[in-house]
Amino acid sequence: MQLWKLTLAYDGTGFHGWQVQPRLATIQGVVSAAIHKLTGEHVLPQGSGRTDAGVHALAQVATFSLQTVLPPTNLQRAMNRALPQAIRVLHAEHAPNGFHARYSATSKTYEYRLFSRVPGTVQVCSPFLAPYAWNCPWDLDLGLAQRGAADLVGEYDFTSFAAVDPELRHNRSEKTFTQSPVRRLMLSAWFAENDFLVYRVTGSGFLHHMVRNIVGTLVDIARGRTAADAIPKILAARSRSAAGPTAPAHGLFLVRVDYRQVHPEAQR
Amino acid sequence: MQLWKLTLAYDGTGFHGWQVQPRLATIQGVVSAAIHKLTGEHVLPQGSGRTDAGVHALAQVATFSLQTVLPPTNLQRAMNRALPQAIRVLHAEHAPNGFHARYSATSKTYEYRLFSRVPGTVQVCSPFLAPYAWNCPWDLDLGLAQRGAADLVGEYDFTSFAAVDPELRHNRSEKTFTQSPVRRLMLSAWFAENDFLVYRVTGSGFLHHMVRNIVGTLVDIARGRTAADAIPKILAARSRSAAGPTAPAHGLFLVRVDYRQVHPEAQR
Repeated sequence: MQLWKLTLAYDGTGFHGWQVQPRLATIQGVVSAAIHKLTGEHVLPQGSGRTDAGVHALAQVATFSLQTVLPPTNLQRAMNRALPQAIRVLHAEHAPNGFHARYSATSKTYEYRLFSRVPGTVQVCSPFLAPYAWNCPWDLDLGLAQRGAADLVGEYDFTSFAAVDPELRHNRSEKTFTQSPVRRLMLSAWFAENDFLVYRVTGSGFLHHMVRNIVGTLVDIARGRTAADAIPKILAARSRSAAGPTAPAHGLFLVRVDYRQVHPEAQR
Repeated sequence: MQLWKLTLAYDGTGFHGWQVQPRLATIQGVVSAAIHKLTGEHVLPQGSGRTDAGVHALAQVATFSLQTVLPPTNLQRAMNRALPQAIRVLHAEHAPNGFHARYSATSKTYEYRLFSRVPGTVQVCSPFLAPYAWNCPWDLDLGLAQRGAADLVGEYDFTSFAAVDPELRHNRSEKTFTQSPVRRLMLSAWFAENDFLVYRVTGSGFLHHMVRNIVGTLVDIARGRTAADAIPKILAARSRSAAGPTAPAHGLFLVRVDYRQVHPEAQR
């Protein structure tokens, strides 16, 4: 058996998220079907994390084992022929034994794109970019959002920013990861990119809906509905109801996953 | 009555082209419905030209007359609220009497986007840009395509590059424009933009499918199926069968429409 590591980009618009589901198009399901078509083998690629329905990826990482032996560029080319154009294999490589897309990750980075008209103008969001950004109708003060974002850097209990999942199905299968709601954010900041405001966040891991709940809360701060210094209190409340609304899925991109540097000698 | 000029951007993916059609979503139909919703008036905006199903626009121009009186930025804001996000009003202004989006145009510019993997690499087309470019599986020699493109600059009978429309419905309503197949191209050239090859063409006007048939022919030249010096012979043949295939609609963008400079004094 050979362990494989794929780096994937996908437009999540037409998919019901990463995780395989009966009778629904999901990234994991479609990638699994492409592997089966090429090799005849039934495998379920493990992602660095599950992206929700409508969430995009510029560099999701997935691992799986195959008995079929073939050069990485051949697998990549063949998969890109088999997959719909909304999912692309950017890179295919062999991974060292023990590597796991999720458990070996040291950090993940997301970006959230938001369109907000410059106050007092008739600026419009390009019809080609609107499906990939939250079109906010409010006047936003980026300075306030920046202040709130900075207060999230560090190690905290992020319960207030985690989805309250009525069906515990997800959590049960992720026991090792979800038993603690403590995560560490290394970067949490806004920047302007062309007509867009982009929130970039790097963390040791993320709870369900955590990035979207953070963005919803920071937008509340930027529009003046929530105080700019409210983040420490929201974190301390450890209650979902203390934070703001969940930002829409279609503005969110998983942009990179980082792993420990593996020294080839260490694998012997 | 006040004559209006709108500049529109649209993602043509979900529309059956510009021209209004019963029971189908078209740009003209949806824009007309938005105007009706705002003003109660039934008008059919006239475009600078009809874009086919799946063709996009960065700056289509449309004119119509309204009895309702309102400031241009109010019309723009209200229309952008009424329209789907795939259609945006970039600019709204009053136009001088006699101005017509189509008949007053002096030139139109289109761009056609094409993705072609650098030969010998595993380069992939971004899933976010693939819906807006023709993904060509062949190795292309841009130098050959450039030579062919240059041979189209000038005034020619473009019959070889015009769709042979079995239903003459289109031509009948466009009599003044389609009775002559002579058009003048001022610019016809390829350039590279990030991972894409872009064909840009500016002309006095375009026959039905003309840009897509030119691109299909230039791609035949770039991949070595047609000689690089074949353009003069193809033009001289005045027969659709002399040229190459029609490139897919989704790579084509109407990027600008130019008009005679109107001096305000001349309007008195």
